[in-house]
Amino acid sequence: MEKVTTDICIVGGGPVGLFAVFEAGLLKMKCHVVDALPVVGGQLSEIYPKKPIYDIPGFPEILAGDLVKNLEKQIAPFHPTFTLGERVDGLEKLEDGSFILRTSAGSEIACKVVVIAGGLGSFEPRKPSIDKLEQYEDKGVVYMVRDPEQFRDKHVLIAGGGDSALDWTIYLAGICKEVTLVHRGSTFRGAPESAAKVLSMAEEGQIKLILKSNVTEVHGEDTLEAVTVMVDNANPYKVDVDYFIPLFGLVPKLGPIEDWGLTLDKNAIAVNTLDYSTNVRGIYAIGDINTYPGKLKLILCGFHEAALMAQSAYNIIYPDKKFVLKYTTVNGIQEI
Amino acid sequence: MEKVTTDICIVGGGPVGLFAVFEAGLLKMKCHVVDALPVVGGQLSEIYPKKPIYDIPGFPEILAGDLVKNLEKQIAPFHPTFTLGERVDGLEKLEDGSFILRTSAGSEIACKVVVIAGGLGSFEPRKPSIDKLEQYEDKGVVYMVRDPEQFRDKHVLIAGGGDSALDWTIYLAGICKEVTLVHRGSTFRGAPESAAKVLSMAEEGQIKLILKSNVTEVHGEDTLEAVTVMVDNANPYKVDVDYFIPLFGLVPKLGPIEDWGLTLDKNAIAVNTLDYSTNVRGIYAIGDINTYPGKLKLILCGFHEAALMAQSAYNIIYPDKKFVLKYTTVNGIQEI
Repeated sequence: MEKVTTDICIVGGGPVGLFAVFEAGLLKMKCHVVDALPVVGGQLSEIYPKKPIYDIPGFPEILAGDLVKNLEKQIAPFHPTFTLGERVDGLEKLEDGSFILRTSAGSEIACKVVVIAGGLGSFEPRKPSIDKLEQYEDKGVVYMVRDPEQFRDKHVLIAGGGDSALDWTIYLAGICKEVTLVHRGSTFRGAPESAAKVLSMAEEGQIKLILKSNVTEVHGEDTLEAVTVMVDNANPYKVDVDYFIPLFGLVPKLGPIEDWGLTLDKNAIAVNTLDYSTNVRGIYAIGDINTYPGKLKLILCGFHEAALMAQSAYNIIYPDKKFVLKYTTVNGIQEI
Repeated sequence: MEKVTTDICIVGGGPVGLFAVFEAGLLKMKCHVVDALPVVGGQLSEIYPKKPIYDIPGFPEILAGDLVKNLEKQIAPFHPTFTLGERVDGLEKLEDGSFILRTSAGSEIACKVVVIAGGLGSFEPRKPSIDKLEQYEDKGVVYMVRDPEQFRDKHVLIAGGGDSALDWTIYLAGICKEVTLVHRGSTFRGAPESAAKVLSMAEEGQIKLILKSNVTEVHGEDTLEAVTVMVDNANPYKVDVDYFIPLFGLVPKLGPIEDWGLTLDKNAIAVNTLDYSTNVRGIYAIGDINTYPGKLKLILCGFHEAALMAQSAYNIIYPDKKFVLKYTTVNGIQEI
């Protein structure tokens, strides 16, 4: 719990939020970043730090986690401050046009501009409706693979038919004692190469594959010990497992931001492409959380949005100064 | 002189044009790139290959030339083809909506979509108005430093007060027998650090600095032998030189593109931010050559424009297919 005063409060410390610190810093605006996650990087740190990304301009291939590290280094000269592990809940607009943001832990950030770079909002795993499933959460039922080592030499059953289910089945086969993949369909939604790989691994006995089936029950004294798999809606049988990992995707939730009086379009914040401003003066939305005609949910688009946002925010923070675009090749980077 | 048939012809091989190949390639569209320069990279290769850029997202610092190399590597899986050293002059729109582009050397490129990524257009140096100056072009008068080695152990006189003049004065002082900088003002427009460096080098006798002065005449039998420097508009004197380098900036010219029937706004092509399309269906403009409300002439903005352009071009090239955005972290890169 802390009290901070800054020029710009950035809600969301993913790649786009981090780069917004850079664009703001070039214009000598100080930033404070708040994120509900305990680390910066957003999805890149939380969901796929070890996966390569191929579409960041100038990087033929870069691990998501390395991109985050690079961005941290890039913004270091501007000395951003952070409140991590706290979710922004409340927003208050003061009479002078500035804002107070309040977090779940009671921290308060006073700022002149709010930049929402909240990605897809807070993520929640889509949970299958299985009786008593929640009793076993963190006692054998896991919705997101964070540390694969947790599953070394264990019996693991994965459910799902998308990329996560396929990718983790392939990956964990090399670590676990036994990996079983249960999928309700007979074909996969994930990448064709991954599906082909899973099928061939099943043929070779490296994994067990149970198609046209669902997990219908979970069992165990205190921790999870077994699940019931229903085949073809008719034939139930029990499988002993240490871990059950249902991978049915993540459901993004905007959360408290929904109540800030911003114009929403489905699950996103509507912005003006002139400067990625929302309908409330002083509040911008950049990256995956915004929407506009032609919007693509790509990191590189969020970078562009951050640059245009910063120009516009400059007029709010320095209303009397005229902005002149300067190129970093000419002027370098000045610390603030 | 060649004949090429492709999906997309990209006019301009700078960083944004190169990245457009990548975004098109992800959607399985083949690209051919035409550039008047003999190498790809545009200004990055031609004007400042050894200068660091600090505002490419994910690179705390990268030499312009290295960014070009990275982009070449990034697009390699999509096997783009190139016509370099030829300027696109003519554009013809055929009845079926496709295009034929013709270059200065008579090459013809048939394509379904044209993407103009022409930067600031073709650059021409701003020439001082000095009698007979053009007689000595390439015979001692040089408007752009391409190979500094050309000036080793020579007497060189540079004119100008901006970054180029300052930077080359500093750089060439270590190579030339003698470097003289002539500037009409008494303060410099370039970066303060560079100006301070030039002043201290002059004090230490490493260069000659003549302020409040202009070059008014050029002399020489066949090649340049001397220039007349007018001090304070009153006192002319002759300086023996091997080279005279007037560095008064570059003047961008749109060139033949002006006659393609595109809506222009000052020296740029007006586009729709939905997809960076021009007023002519099938022709897009991305990067520094376009303009729209809020436009910033930044490389990173051009990258975003390339991504949105590619989605829209897909509908022209594959009118019957429905596009689904796929992430490279999930699907990787497939060669085309």
